[in-house]
Amino acid sequence: MEERQESPATVLITRRETFSAAHRLRNPAWDDARNERVFGKDARAHGHTYTLEVTVKGQIDPDTGMVLDLRDLRDLIRRLIIDKTDHADLNADVDFLQGQLPTAENIVVACWRQLAPALGSGQLHRLRLWESENNSVEYYGE
Amino acid sequence: MEERQESPATVLITRRETFSAAHRLRNPAWDDARNERVFGKDARAHGHTYTLEVTVKGQIDPDTGMVLDLRDLRDLIRRLIIDKTDHADLNADVDFLQGQLPTAENIVVACWRQLAPALGSGQLHRLRLWESENNSVEYYGE
Amino acid sequence: MEERQESPATVLITRRETFSAAHRLRNPAWDDARNERVFGKDARAHGHTYTLEVTVKGQIDPDTGMVLDLRDLRDLIRRLIIDKTDHADLNADVDFLQGQLPTAENIVVACWRQLAPALGSGQLHRLRLWESENNSVEYYGE
Amino acid sequence: MEERQESPATVLITRRETFSAAHRLRNPAWDDARNERVFGKDARAHGHTYTLEVTVKGQIDPDTGMVLDLRDLRDLIRRLIIDKTDHADLNADVDFLQGQLPTAENIVVACWRQLAPALGSGQLHRLRLWESENNSVEYYGE
Amino acid sequence: MEERQESPATVLITRRETFSAAHRLRNPAWDDARNERVFGKDARAHGHTYTLEVTVKGQIDPDTGMVLDLRDLRDLIRRLIIDKTDHADLNADVDFLQGQLPTAENIVVACWRQLAPALGSGQLHRLRLWESENNSVEYYGE
Amino acid sequence: MEERQESPATVLITRRETFSAAHRLRNPAWDDARNERVFGKDARAHGHTYTLEVTVKGQIDPDTGMVLDLRDLRDLIRRLIIDKTDHADLNADVDFLQGQLPTAENIVVACWRQLAPALGSGQLHRLRLWESENNSVEYYGE
Repeated sequence: MEERQESPATVLITRRETFSAAHRLRNPAWDDARNERVFGKDARAHGHTYTLEVTVKGQIDPDTGMVLDLRDLRDLIRRLIIDKTDHADLNADVDFLQGQLPTAENIVVACWRQLAPALGSGQLHRLRLWESENNSVEYYGE
Repeated sequence: MEERQESPATVLITRRETFSAAHRLRNPAWDDARNERVFGKDARAHGHTYTLEVTVKGQIDPDTGMVLDLRDLRDLIRRLIIDKTDHADLNADVDFLQGQLPTAENIVVACWRQLAPALGSGQLHRLRLWESENNSVEYYGE
Repeated sequence: MEERQESPATVLITRRETFSAAHRLRNPAWDDARNERVFGKDARAHGHTYTLEVTVKGQIDPDTGMVLDLRDLRDLIRRLIIDKTDHADLNADVDFLQGQLPTAENIVVACWRQLAPALGSGQLHRLRLWESENNSVEYYGE
Repeated sequence: MEERQESPATVLITRRETFSAAHRLRNPAWDDARNERVFGKDARAHGHTYTLEVTVKGQIDPDTGMVLDLRDLRDLIRRLIIDKTDHADLNADVDFLQGQLPTAENIVVACWRQLAPALGSGQLHRLRLWESENNSVEYYGE
Repeated sequence: MEERQESPATVLITRRETFSAAHRLRNPAWDDARNERVFGKDARAHGHTYTLEVTVKGQIDPDTGMVLDLRDLRDLIRRLIIDKTDHADLNADVDFLQGQLPTAENIVVACWRQLAPALGSGQLHRLRLWESENNSVEYYGE
Repeated sequence: MEERQESPATVLITRRETFSAAHRLRNPAWDDARNERVFGKDARAHGHTYTLEVTVKGQIDPDTGMVLDLRDLRDLIRRLIIDKTDHADLNADVDFLQGQLPTAENIVVACWRQLAPALGSGQLHRLRLWESENNSVEYYGE
């Protein structure tokens, strides 16, 4: 639309979605006492209203002024993550979490493996997952 | 401390606390199909990071400048509500929710019945419970 | 579900939705100078990410533990308000705002007139509309 | 602007402002031990980023679509409250708090006495003061 | 003020400002059908309450304990960005957006070009622009 | 718990805590006029409700699914930072701020020096300190 000699700028875009899920932390290789000692009250069934922030990095398309249509990103996140995790038990119901302890750390890495192949190469830049207003994790694919 | 002829002002004070809990909505008098039809995905085990706002109404004590010490209110909420609901399954673990469908509406009324007798007569004014940033309920004891 | 002698409790439930809209404040009965004097920079086209909180008051249904299914309330708000106001020009595009100066005050009253007839008698209790984190209006139907 | 037979609707408008202030709680009629026992760590100098929400109630002016211009309300709050309390020591620097223990309760009542006479009769409806995200007080002039 | 042998620490400071603006997305090289297909409801006039976070990186000045006075940074942002974009139509009124599709991506890059020359070399580190609580973009000048 | 050939993922975890403190900015090497000129109203005693976000970087432990137990991180922050700064005068009461101008920049660097030695080598990744919703600083230990 405008005449710019420079190559297009590289911008990060972020979409935020939420899901409500139950989970508990329990390592099946351990007995109850050890699980209780390591995980404390996290060993009991409880839940969170999770917030997931998905950040994609790319150059601005000069025709649309966008890196990626945020509505497309929203739809992708909902299809691959939210439809599976919202109103679910993260210990039992979510295919991409099978066999995983559903800690915030493991969830965020599993979400990365869900989303990265569906985006163009190198596009997924950062995931941030909030369990509560005080606790969050970030993952950059490393 | 100051010389005021008027009677002390009446002020509302509010303390906010959070708890993380699992729940599901299921009426045991109904079959699965009806539960699924009425409660939709709420019939599945899931969870929330709940926020509870407790509001107490009273006159300012001229000696302390306070209606009630907010630390005492905080300790009361933690002892009667948070210690029982945080990292719990609201369908099974909480004594004051036994036999109740743990909807936000029923939870907020049950919290009122826990807190009101522990406060002076007429002091508890309002409870507000947030299940998520978009959904909340309020109860005034009526 | 439980045996309660008392009549069901009366609870307020609130659903929050957002919409992004353009508007400007201009009274067609006035000349430009007077519009500029009264409305200042609000006389120029600008916009807001509005947040609308809809509060319904009712008794808890003993079978469902709910006043009203929050998903039904959400769908009603989206159909009657958000689908018409989101990504719209409030001075031109919204049927229920025709002939109105789209101030926050007039918008909140117009939303009430949209929503109240679609809910049971006396159910709509409060609307709160946020134009920004610092400015909001409330309406109770009076 | 529009032809409405009914009398104008009554709406509440709220403006939010913040101020950063130091304070400590100490009753000069008491010795140190009693102050420490009653006020705990609040007896020590500390501070808060306070948020004040000022709510005015009135009928919508049919010509402007407003109860009160929110910019005028903002300017009034800044002149009567924020200019005096922001970056101030609430125990020493604020004229309208002289001789008061600067608890949240006393501050909110003192703010009411500052603001109410400057607004039309019966217009000031509610003040809410937040000391932190977890603690707040409300006053309705009673 | 203190005796430190090490060189001063490098810190990032961030100032947040908001502006309310109208915009629509339309590429003048395309016909209506294509604009509608690409931009959907963003092709219609609407608006947002934008939040801009400006982050500057620098060493702490040992005399002031500051990287840059946050009030000076605030004044700079207001003069170069907010005074031009607040209560404006981003498609027509803003000099530094002329000839640009006002997507969040293009706005954040244009803001960078406004701010970077006014700050010392290499000082501007990051801009983050929020269109809504769910959508944001970041730019690092690359 | 699961069979993964790859080395464990590296994740950032963040814990947020708050403290309420008084401070004033004054360089003792300067006279009052110069302090007033440089620091403006920050030269007067005032205070903030500070928010501190502590981010630790590490590999996920395959047995616990965690980088570090967030409760341990919370306890460490409370013991080393919050117990000393909450309800304190940052100019006088805090051992790790002695001889420092308590600007946000200097506080965040001092917090780093408190926390880094108590964590494993290279674990502390980022500190972010908010003085208000509009002003914040970040430090990465450089």
